[in-house]
Amino acid sequence: MLTLYDYLDSGNGYKVRQILALRGIPHRRVECDIDKGETRTPEFLARNPNGRVPLLEFEDGTCLAESNAILFYLAEGCQWLPNAPLPRAQVLQWLFFEQYSHEPYVATPRYIIRHLGRDHPRARELPERIERGHQALRVMETHLATRDFFVDQRFNIALYAYTHVAHEADIDLAPYKQVQAWLARVASQPGHIALTQV
Amino acid sequence: MLTLYDYLDSGNGYKVRQILALRGIPHRRVECDIDKGETRTPEFLARNPNGRVPLLEFEDGTCLAESNAILFYLAEGCQWLPNAPLPRAQVLQWLFFEQYSHEPYVATPRYIIRHLGRDHPRARELPERIERGHQALRVMETHLATRDFFVDQRFNIALYAYTHVAHEADIDLAPYKQVQAWLARVASQPGHIALTQV
Repeated sequence: MLTLYDYLDSGNGYKVRQILALRGIPHRRVECDIDKGETRTPEFLARNPNGRVPLLEFEDGTCLAESNAILFYLAEGCQWLPNAPLPRAQVLQWLFFEQYSHEPYVATPRYIIRHLGRDHPRARELPERIERGHQALRVMETHLATRDFFVDQRFNIALYAYTHVAHEADIDLAPYKQVQAWLARVASQPGHIALTQV
Repeated sequence: MLTLYDYLDSGNGYKVRQILALRGIPHRRVECDIDKGETRTPEFLARNPNGRVPLLEFEDGTCLAESNAILFYLAEGCQWLPNAPLPRAQVLQWLFFEQYSHEPYVATPRYIIRHLGRDHPRARELPERIERGHQALRVMETHLATRDFFVDQRFNIALYAYTHVAHEADIDLAPYKQVQAWLARVASQPGHIALTQV
């Protein structure tokens, strides 16, 4: 059976929980409290030297890290991942966009606010990160102006994860009408689960 | 014919030039000077709302962004990308690691030093970025202690791109013996080209 090393408040973990639920894949979940350093223990670092969840462990002990790599692996062969090379590469384009241009500016300010607190020294990073979060949302808004989903009629698990809780990162989605409509479309898909649903 | 919108000093662009060279794929190259804002013009933003190179344009005008998505697309079906699902996902794991945990801490300090200058206000970001660059290199060093390449016996185009010029980001590779040996192995592969070779 697969083991998912996870943290319930993590949007990156949520991506994996979502695809596991959609596909009905049996697994066990091991909660790792990142605030208590449980992803930096020698045992965890032996599984993932980068010290991060989510991490997927196979029966034979092989581990796969990086939420979007796990998502791509678990979506292989189902309707949420296109087969044709170019749409498939476009899915990857948005997965890399999410990790490079969105996650550090939507997930990280949310982490600072919820886990470190507004009095923490890292709170000084918030204004710039939030401004870049808005830049990412403007890119998404532009792309969605002529489409219902990012690529074909697909589920968009990765970008949904942190975008739908952007308000927890002090990012107001009110100006992003297309993004709001898209969030509602994703949430209405059969099999959709909430962030903390396991 | 494919068109590559590119910038010669970019390691992200280099990844695409490398796979195009390895596969002998005909293309034309359009140099975009990022320091002159040539990726933020209305014409460029119509191709990529995220305003970044490299960008691959197909004959019909379809565009594909994100260096690692382009790399994955162009490597499909050749010996540098494994076919089996798990090794393929492991390649993706290292591509996402490169964009999230390596590029901002190796490529960005290099950009600040070479393009903005050490007197620029953003130079204050250098110490923290460089420290996190070393964290990424320690992860790579650990992984390479028991392997010749990151996944199977593969080429590792993406991680090579900025790692081999880490000294230009004030990151000394001397402590990373495994990483140095791996860089030499990649550079000795048939068909390898240099960063600014077009």
